[in-house]
This record gives sequence, C-alpha cells and structure tokens, in this order.
Amino acid sequence: MRTLCLDVGGTKVAAAVHDETLGPVTRRATAGDPWASVTDLLDPLAAGGIDQLGVACGGPMEWPAGVVAPLNIPAWVGGFPLRDRLAEKYGVPVRLHNDAVCVAAAEHAFGGWGVEDLLGMVVSTGVGGGLVLGGRLVDGGTGNAGHVGHVVVDPNGPVCPCGGRGCLEGIARGPAIVDWARSRGSKATDGVDLGRLAAQGDSVALQAFARAGNALGIGIASAIHLLDVQVVAIGGGISQVPSLWPTLRRTLAEHARLSYAREVRVEPAHLGQEAGLLGAAALFDDRYWSA
Amino acid sequence: MRTLCLDVGGTKVAAAVHDETLGPVTRRATAGDPWASVTDLLDPLAAGGIDQLGVACGGPMEWPAGVVAPLNIPAWVGGFPLRDRLAEKYGVPVRLHNDAVCVAAAEHAFGGWGVEDLLGMVVSTGVGGGLVLGGRLVDGGTGNAGHVGHVVVDPNGPVCPCGGRGCLEGIARGPAIVDWARSRGSKATDGVDLGRLAAQGDSVALQAFARAGNALGIGIASAIHLLDVQVVAIGGGISQVPSLWPTLRRTLAEHARLSYAREVRVEPAHLGQEAGLLGAAALFDDRYWSA
Repeated sequence: MRTLCLDVGGTKVAAAVHDETLGPVTRRATAGDPWASVTDLLDPLAAGGIDQLGVACGGPMEWPAGVVAPLNIPAWVGGFPLRDRLAEKYGVPVRLHNDAVCVAAAEHAFGGWGVEDLLGMVVSTGVGGGLVLGGRLVDGGTGNAGHVGHVVVDPNGPVCPCGGRGCLEGIARGPAIVDWARSRGSKATDGVDLGRLAAQGDSVALQAFARAGNALGIGIASAIHLLDVQVVAIGGGISQVPSLWPTLRRTLAEHARLSYAREVRVEPAHLGQEAGLLGAAALFDDRYWSA
Repeated sequence: MRTLCLDVGGTKVAAAVHDETLGPVTRRATAGDPWASVTDLLDPLAAGGIDQLGVACGGPMEWPAGVVAPLNIPAWVGGFPLRDRLAEKYGVPVRLHNDAVCVAAAEHAFGGWGVEDLLGMVVSTGVGGGLVLGGRLVDGGTGNAGHVGHVVVDPNGPVCPCGGRGCLEGIARGPAIVDWARSRGSKATDGVDLGRLAAQGDSVALQAFARAGNALGIGIASAIHLLDVQVVAIGGGISQVPSLWPTLRRTLAEHARLSYAREVRVEPAHLGQEAGLLGAAALFDDRYWSA
C-alpha cells in the first residue's frame, strides 16, 4: 500500500510517500494560503499513484471528522474541513489525527521501544501528547486522550491560554519559557536562542529551563501514576535542550515513588522530525485507528 | 454461568453468587485470620455449585497473578497468593483485580451511564480508581492504570504515604482529612464522625472537607484532560459527605477549561456498596479482562 503522508505544522508542511519505508520528504512554508501550500506539496507525490492519505495536524480539531483549527494557522482558526477536502481532491481514504497523537503512534510502531504502553509527548510551541495502552492507540471520547499539556502542575501558577491555571503547557511550552526568561532580563528571541544561551551557561536561561523541567517532572509523575505506562517518549524542539533534563529527572524522582512508577523509562523520543509523517502512515494500522 | 463474587476490604469481606443478577450478600469481619474469614464466607455459597470466582481486593497487588498485600490487612502485608489459593480450593477459574478497578468496571457495566469512557474513583480510606476507555478496562503495564490517588495536586504539599509529596490521596483520603481537622482542634474520631460534624455546620469540619474537595477538583481536572473520559463516577464513604462537593465542583470548573473537559459529568457513583461484587462478576466479561 502506498500511503501519502502529510504533517501540517504552524510554520511548515511536510509530505512523503510511505511504502514499507518512508520516501524522500518535501517541505514548504505554511505562510499565505495553507490549502495551496498543502496541495502544492501533495500534487506531485499523488501523481505517482497512492492508495490512502494519512495526516498529522496541530490541534484543536474535531476528531474523527478532521475539521481542524490549528492555533498557529490563522486562516484555519475558525475550522477547516481538511479531511473532507483532501478526500474529495485525491479520491482516496483519508485518516487524520492530532500531530502529537501521531508522534505517539509512530514511537510505538517504529521507535523500537519494545513496550505496549507508552505516552508520547511533544514539547515545543505547545505541550501535546498521545497515548498507546495495551498496544492500541487510545482516543478518548473526543480524540483528546493523552493531552498531557493541561495536567495541573501548580494550582496557583500562571493562567494558561486554555483559561485554566497552572497547566503544564502554560509553564513548559517554548514561548512561556522564553517569556519567563525575558521578564528576568534575558534578550533571547525564541526557544532556540534561549537554548543556545543555556548551553553557554547563562544563568537566567538555565533557570528558565530548570523551571520548565520541574513542571515536566510533576506532570509526568501524575501521568505515569494514572496511566501505568512503561515508557514516556519526549520529542519536540524544547526537549532537545540538555539543561531541561536534570531538573525534570530530579523532580520526577521526588514525586513518582510507587514501585511501578519508579521503573518507567522517561527518555527523549527515538524518532526525529519525521515522527509525525510516520505516525500519519501508522493511522492505517487498525491498532491506531478506532473511528 | 454462576459466578461466585468476593470483595475483600480492610475491615470486612463480602460475598454473593452472581447469576444474571447478584444474589443475597453475606458479610464477615476480616479481623483474625483473613483466609478463614474468606473461606467461611465462600464455602456455603460454593456448595450450591459455581462455574467461576471473581475477586475485588484492596491493593497493592501483583496483577494478574493475584498475589495481594492489602495495606489494611496486616496478616497479608507480605504478600498472599489469594488467586492461586482460591483456584486450588474451589477448583474453578479465578480472576482478581484491584477493588477500585472492579468498581470502575461495575459502573461501566451496570451503572447505566451510557458511555464508553469512564474513570471510576473510590474516595475512602485511600483514593483509588479504575479506567474504562473505548468500552474496555485499561490495565496498564502492571494493572495499576486509573490509580488517580497519586496524581500530584500540590507539589509543595504534605508527604504522602507513597513517599511522594502532594499526592491527591495524601490530602483527600479519609484519615488525612480527619488528621487535618484534629490538628485544628476537632475531636472527630473518624470520617463518619467528621462528616456528621460538617452536617451540623462545624467550621473546622467544613474546612476539612472543602480542602479535600479542592484537592479532588485539581486531580480530576488533570485526569480528565489527560484521559478524555465522558464520566467520572465517584464512590466511597468520603464521597457521600455533601460538603465535599461544592468546593470540588468550583475548583474543577476553574481548572478544567478545554471544551471537551467542561462537558465531563463528574458525579456520585450510581452503584452502592455492592459495586465491588458486581465488578468482580464483570471480570469474566472479556471487555474487563485482558490478562
């Protein structure tokens, strides 16, 4: 089966054909008309003949209908019927899920972890997640299971964009880390820049990532107590900053004390930036699709 | 099929035969030799002829092996092979799971909620839980999925018996609520007594249950964001204290703000004290047993 895979992010769109393995990946900026960016990318790949189309897309969305309203794509924020539009244009079955959910499916299917219970996380512009339990992707009632970014890690903490207070995402997402550092005098422009400063030993940058690591440690402790997974695989740009990890591990060890929780492997994701595309292909495996 | 059902708690053991419906329930104190209490209760019921034996038991335990070490039964705290001993004595298949997990299965199977995604909770001497997702009981890697009592609700809160800090159970379990009230001058002897004082308008008792309700609201907000369930059904003695609920609902509303989380029904469990026995019967439905 030739699966056309699409990964729709806030700043770029990526696509490739998966046929036993993932073929060459092409990318394009999302800026301008996102539908034009998507079809420009897919048309030449679809011309080679495809059987099905899998899509990883930023949330929120109506699942499984695939009406998407990614926070970082203004043109679609009112809701765009991406699944139906793609099915109509390319004439093949389309399956679409949250990008962090696709990453979790990919880590389980292709990451080589050798476990049947896994929480996949993406720590980047937001903090997302997806959940594989008993070897199957768990969707939840509305497709939002695994949404670890809104676990409460500090009940008196900052207001989160969701309207709640003290959510993991409100503290540990990239822009929140940068804002915190800038409020303490840092000149960092974005997460990459702040990560570079931390690598040079900049005190405020190190404190900023330590604070995010602490929040991640608390949120992950809660999640593994509740879920009894064997692996938490963490991807996304922020997860690649080394100074995040010592505090994450220390806080996690303080809070995750029950025997089954102490043995959980909490580690960087095994797959790189192709994880979303691989997960989009995995959606055609019935272990990862129940709709 | 005639299922012999057993519910092993810290202070009493209950049993009944389930044959399409649950027959008369007999009870006995656990005090003394718990194995003798169990067999005294089961022998006359088994004499009527049974096909299988389902057991709900307090944790922790090795699952699915059924080696139990309930915190409140000193004679078994080193680990007692309850499943094997019962299979040997009664010569029928035995399935055994955590009592809070059985309550969750029972609420899904017999509670009339009409949903496929449900977190069942028991707020009593401890705070336990069990998880039904996509219409199936979720076990997790070691049978501990749904263990909501160790979600962190206050990172700087009291040390929990598990060794962690600020766990929901460390604040909202009955003995912790009573301890908190007594440290502020209350003469309450146990949770029932403190509940009676709260019903009379006693200020310290009301504050104690409000504090527990606040912790429950935070923990449940985290759980429903992560799990995307449609229902949280809360049983156990502490959940029956009315003054717990207004604070629980207010805190939950403050923290559970994403659209899918706002619509979750968080309500008292539908089944009464027979929920554990009904769940023990449900373990022979393959929706609730994957071992």
